[in-house]
Amino acid sequence: MADSSISIAARSDSATKTRVSVRDFEFIVDQPENFGGENDGPTPVEYFLGAWAACMSGTCKLVAAEHEIDIQALSFDVASDIDTAKLMGQESTNRCGLQGIEAEIEIDCDADEKAIKAMIDETVTRCPVTDNVTNETPLNWSVSLPAHSTPD
Amino acid sequence: MADSSISIAARSDSATKTRVSVRDFEFIVDQPENFGGENDGPTPVEYFLGAWAACMSGTCKLVAAEHEIDIQALSFDVASDIDTAKLMGQESTNRCGLQGIEAEIEIDCDADEKAIKAMIDETVTRCPVTDNVTNETPLNWSVSLPAHSTPD
Repeated sequence: MADSSISIAARSDSATKTRVSVRDFEFIVDQPENFGGENDGPTPVEYFLGAWAACMSGTCKLVAAEHEIDIQALSFDVASDIDTAKLMGQESTNRCGLQGIEAEIEIDCDADEKAIKAMIDETVTRCPVTDNVTNETPLNWSVSLPAHSTPD
Repeated sequence: MADSSISIAARSDSATKTRVSVRDFEFIVDQPENFGGENDGPTPVEYFLGAWAACMSGTCKLVAAEHEIDIQALSFDVASDIDTAKLMGQESTNRCGLQGIEAEIEIDCDADEKAIKAMIDETVTRCPVTDNVTNETPLNWSVSLPAHSTPD
């Protein structure tokens, strides 16, 4: 059914730092010093929001080409709140993840407001990461232990 | 209610390339050449999966410390399938996003299998990005146009 398979590997380098390998690329995820990290890279939720904005950006360019809209400039200001209580093991009525995504999309193009709205509406329905953000995505995991640490 | 606000900015550089700015960091999101890009960085869905693995990694280290489990090594092999039909504007019975996340978590630590499973189960419930991946996250967007392109 699927036409593409994606795989990444991630290795924990410290309590806060993770090294992610993707094809020939590598990127570092860390926490700022006030969250106990060394600030060697963006945090997981920052990459998450960046992945969303970049997916919207590329999908919007694709839809614009189909709609024969010439985009001169396209940018996203994205904000999100998080309550870290549950992450830190405390009680909270808030979810542990980002509470929502608020985005201001700035577009400079040759279309009128109605055509722009139709283009963004279609972008939202066709953008892969938007689908994963706004809907549930199944997660399956298994644990493997190195031979020497396999419990008796 | 929230104790932390996160913001990022993203600017489209080409049909496939997006430059994401986060605090003092910048990262490039692109597509490989066979998807029309210049392969100047990982794709949005690759960053998305990396963000998830890194969030799990950091949360697992936090939970391990509370459980007094000493982790020697922790890594993630993550795979996901996607059907790009809807993204490309074609009909499909598949969703347009990643169909699911399959992760193999490799842990070298001093705990037995039961304690490791309890640690990972707790990690999954406290990991922010896991919450956003496995549950719905509200998305609100607005469009702003530069003054000279505001429709009459």
